[in-house]
Amino acid sequence: MRRLYLKKGEERRLRIGHQWIFSNEVDTGKSPLHDFTPGENVTVCNSGGSPVASAYVNPSSVIAARVVSQQPDTPFDAGLLHRRITEALAMRQMIFDRPYYRMVFAEGDWLPGLIVDRYGDFLVAQLTTAGAEAAKPQITAVLKDVVRPRGLLYRNDSANRGMEGLKSYVEQAFGHIPDTLEIEENGVRFYAPLMEGQKTGWFYDQRINRRDFASFAQGKKVLDAFCYAGGFGVTAAAAGAAQTTFLDASPLALQTVEANAALNRVSGSVKTVAGDALETLARLRDQGRRYDVICVDPPAFIKRRKHQKQGLKAYQRVNELAMELAEDGGILMSCSCSQHLSADELRRVLNRAARRAGCRIQTLTQGHQGPDHPVHPAMPETNYLKTFTVRVNRTS
Amino acid sequence: MRRLYLKKGEERRLRIGHQWIFSNEVDTGKSPLHDFTPGENVTVCNSGGSPVASAYVNPSSVIAARVVSQQPDTPFDAGLLHRRITEALAMRQMIFDRPYYRMVFAEGDWLPGLIVDRYGDFLVAQLTTAGAEAAKPQITAVLKDVVRPRGLLYRNDSANRGMEGLKSYVEQAFGHIPDTLEIEENGVRFYAPLMEGQKTGWFYDQRINRRDFASFAQGKKVLDAFCYAGGFGVTAAAAGAAQTTFLDASPLALQTVEANAALNRVSGSVKTVAGDALETLARLRDQGRRYDVICVDPPAFIKRRKHQKQGLKAYQRVNELAMELAEDGGILMSCSCSQHLSADELRRVLNRAARRAGCRIQTLTQGHQGPDHPVHPAMPETNYLKTFTVRVNRTS
Repeated sequence: MRRLYLKKGEERRLRIGHQWIFSNEVDTGKSPLHDFTPGENVTVCNSGGSPVASAYVNPSSVIAARVVSQQPDTPFDAGLLHRRITEALAMRQMIFDRPYYRMVFAEGDWLPGLIVDRYGDFLVAQLTTAGAEAAKPQITAVLKDVVRPRGLLYRNDSANRGMEGLKSYVEQAFGHIPDTLEIEENGVRFYAPLMEGQKTGWFYDQRINRRDFASFAQGKKVLDAFCYAGGFGVTAAAAGAAQTTFLDASPLALQTVEANAALNRVSGSVKTVAGDALETLARLRDQGRRYDVICVDPPAFIKRRKHQKQGLKAYQRVNELAMELAEDGGILMSCSCSQHLSADELRRVLNRAARRAGCRIQTLTQGHQGPDHPVHPAMPETNYLKTFTVRVNRTS
Repeated sequence: MRRLYLKKGEERRLRIGHQWIFSNEVDTGKSPLHDFTPGENVTVCNSGGSPVASAYVNPSSVIAARVVSQQPDTPFDAGLLHRRITEALAMRQMIFDRPYYRMVFAEGDWLPGLIVDRYGDFLVAQLTTAGAEAAKPQITAVLKDVVRPRGLLYRNDSANRGMEGLKSYVEQAFGHIPDTLEIEENGVRFYAPLMEGQKTGWFYDQRINRRDFASFAQGKKVLDAFCYAGGFGVTAAAAGAAQTTFLDASPLALQTVEANAALNRVSGSVKTVAGDALETLARLRDQGRRYDVICVDPPAFIKRRKHQKQGLKAYQRVNELAMELAEDGGILMSCSCSQHLSADELRRVLNRAARRAGCRIQTLTQGHQGPDHPVHPAMPETNYLKTFTVRVNRTS
């Protein structure tokens, strides 16, 4: 393995456990980045020449290298993949009774660039870096060996592949993957649209928040805005909500909601409304509608740091509308999956929204991504999902 | 109600919903603080003379006044207490099946200075400010009216009463309160030592974290350090832990643990060790003991901001020892109830402890105080409890 040399002091972040090396931290005099092939395994050295870690390189990415081990001369190969994937699987098997979970969460499982979702006997993977793409044969072989799945699909069509200079494609590595698979979560069944759906088809990260949301639902009027396949609302309906309304812009998503409602025998209490969520929320508010229990789980409004200001406005608007739609004493679960919006910023957004909506709120629970999306304690970047459940009070 | 005038601009924090007015924010030329009696109700005005809120005053406290309503001329009287206590009770009744919870959480329920814990038919209250102390007859009457309890105990012996110039006492307001009461939490029964125990006798704030901790326990070797009455460990034992070891410095606490184990018929799997928790953890480590699932829930090591540095060291030491005691792949739930330690600081403490203990950790869950301790979204001060559950990995 060749050496990648850092500038003076740039190993500090790595020493506390961070896994990213930015291109401006590399001593390109001693180790020019364009000398390396995308995905090449290297030993990282400090400016004094002492080895500090192993990594794989991408000369054309802002994140020039990603650490795969704090030991030198440890390539991202079948041996490392086998140890880490086995360890990741063991953790999920300890926590979950049923084989439906995110099985590998990239840096959170010390496997940068690799995401694997498990749908029973089927796996859907995403390779998001040149290093992971280069190790694809080994990844496929290790997943086959460790999990013995009936099929493996690569959904290598995520937007961030462009930043790594990788092309977008979807590929069945082996086995035949159905378009839609049935999963179970919190005792509720769902169809997950693997092929046509967003990302890998299902958002396992909200599992615990869906359970917590549904705990408020019995006998209540529920609203699920930005509902996608209905994870929150169908869990609430199955927990005994009197009525659940689903909002989404995508007709495919609402079809899936209806199928999921039928699968759990709650179609009678379910209503879907197609359209832009913000416009629909405003229309319902203007019609004087009120709900007891509301979830807003919008897509990331702040995908990059430069979208911060505009994104904050969007979060504020959505939450203000949701509070206006809440009954006195009603419950609002507000989610953000924007990596660039901290929990503290979302707290302030909610406080401001409450003042504008003319109500007092109190935070009952604070939620996070589920345990199958482990957070790397040295990498706040891996801690992306946050929710607040507030009670909306209208009296003074 | 007399007027309390603020200096120019000092109403800003109140406008976003904060409830505290510090003595240096008051225009003592226009409204000298020593003119007010402790607990006196006032209308707060900005420097222009416009009313902005109602509050009660304590001329001898750093927090010179606490807002009780954003409306002017709204005293902290029986009417306000009735509305707010009714609202607080309704929230708990919506969430909990059984009448065991913190029923009023001071600022989190817009009732500054008032804490009420409910133990079935009995209430244990704390008045922590001169304003709450002055309203004691009204508080007693409203609690009687709204809850109709068999007894009410004032545990007015908390340390922070000194800062308000209040003396320390314990008083049975009405009814006869037994020394110890039986409660139920997460389906597990506990004796709570109301008279001899810490604070109001039971820490309801950890309810959800105890449930989450116990979810890892089945068939495992469990360690509960700083165990007090055994909330974490007995819940784990009842969930099927193979063996649970409890550490605490207090013999009374360990007696309560043994009684609680017997109450849940798990005495056979339970062992108690008396002694300083840090010393005992170090001794167990030196003996080569290992545990699968560990909880460390120390008392607040950082009670005041000036204890920050020393407190951080103590958190670090405890967590380093706990990680050294964990099996490979073991689980550690690490708690902090220090208001002056943020979740982000605890995350960094854990990351540093892991490096020193020579292991990799990943965060599986992030916990908070339960919903009966609602957080005021404009007052981060009310968000005091944080936990991280990490998995401890020893392989490289």
